[in-house]
Amino acid sequence: MKLYDLELSGNCYKVRLFCALIGQPITLRPVNFLEGEHKSAEFIERNPFGEIPVLIDGDVILRNSQAMLAYLARKFDREDWYPTGAREEAEVMQWLMVAENEIARGPNDARLHDKFAYKLDVEAARIASARLIEILDKHLSRCKWLALSKPTIADVACFPYVALAHEGGISLEPYTSVRAWLDRVKALPNFLTMPAI
Amino acid sequence: MKLYDLELSGNCYKVRLFCALIGQPITLRPVNFLEGEHKSAEFIERNPFGEIPVLIDGDVILRNSQAMLAYLARKFDREDWYPTGAREEAEVMQWLMVAENEIARGPNDARLHDKFAYKLDVEAARIASARLIEILDKHLSRCKWLALSKPTIADVACFPYVALAHEGGISLEPYTSVRAWLDRVKALPNFLTMPAI
Repeated sequence: MKLYDLELSGNCYKVRLFCALIGQPITLRPVNFLEGEHKSAEFIERNPFGEIPVLIDGDVILRNSQAMLAYLARKFDREDWYPTGAREEAEVMQWLMVAENEIARGPNDARLHDKFAYKLDVEAARIASARLIEILDKHLSRCKWLALSKPTIADVACFPYVALAHEGGISLEPYTSVRAWLDRVKALPNFLTMPAI
Repeated sequence: MKLYDLELSGNCYKVRLFCALIGQPITLRPVNFLEGEHKSAEFIERNPFGEIPVLIDGDVILRNSQAMLAYLARKFDREDWYPTGAREEAEVMQWLMVAENEIARGPNDARLHDKFAYKLDVEAARIASARLIEILDKHLSRCKWLALSKPTIADVACFPYVALAHEGGISLEPYTSVRAWLDRVKALPNFLTMPAI
């Protein structure tokens, strides 16, 4: 398995993190982001959206980090991380969707603006972040993990950009339940970190 | 099964559509959107994000339309619509993520602005729409369905807001492969429509 990777990308990091948590080795292939390798014709052939990460496993090519987590959990029979069964699967998937939508539009966009100088509506990103983190904090005041009574790929998917929120100008200081959850993720066996976490 | 529903919402529609396609009845409970019922304390208890649809099935409460499609496919053993197996499942999920991210930020946002007077960066939404539809058109010039060689919940998830793109000021006229795919979806047995499709 090979991951087209960027060290500072939270979406790449979540795949590295999950591989570490389940003890599966993965070969990292750093992408030359500054020179725009992810926009090259060769890369677009692998991922028409021109984004990282990309996961290659034999003739399987995946371009979405949430789908990579699901793929890895299924491939390695880790139902503990991604259950089967209609209800539990859907409850995990709902949080994969939060990673894909509310987290992307909130803390991820704010960080892209502040740290990587992306041109985007940073005001909207900060409002979306505040709203999201309020919801997360309330939710996590009532449960230890996002989707089920144990850690799942939902937690892995949502962790990176919440843990990096300060790089988008968002303080987690008032959100004790969010911070306690981040600490629980960091305390998982074989946890792997990245810069600024 | 009860769906908190709004007729003009593409996210509600995709759940109604999938229930029709698999021949499963669902009780619709219209939400009084104009009076802000989805922001009421009672509704927020069901969905802290304050959005529709919400699906209630016994003690299962789901608040994300993509997760609802997955739930319904699993509940009714419709692997034909959402396969199990690491690779096929991930390939479908990638397109559920496109519905959740690129379609939400593109044609869905553009329509929210134009049709429902949402205050948002419509310029960004139109640029995102154009980029997405180019990618879709190229992809669909090479395959009949989004994820696999047959229709899946990926097609159901992505169909509504692409089919409604004109309501966000986006013309599909140049995109023959996208239009042919929309027609294939519309020709599915038991297809159900909604206003403006």
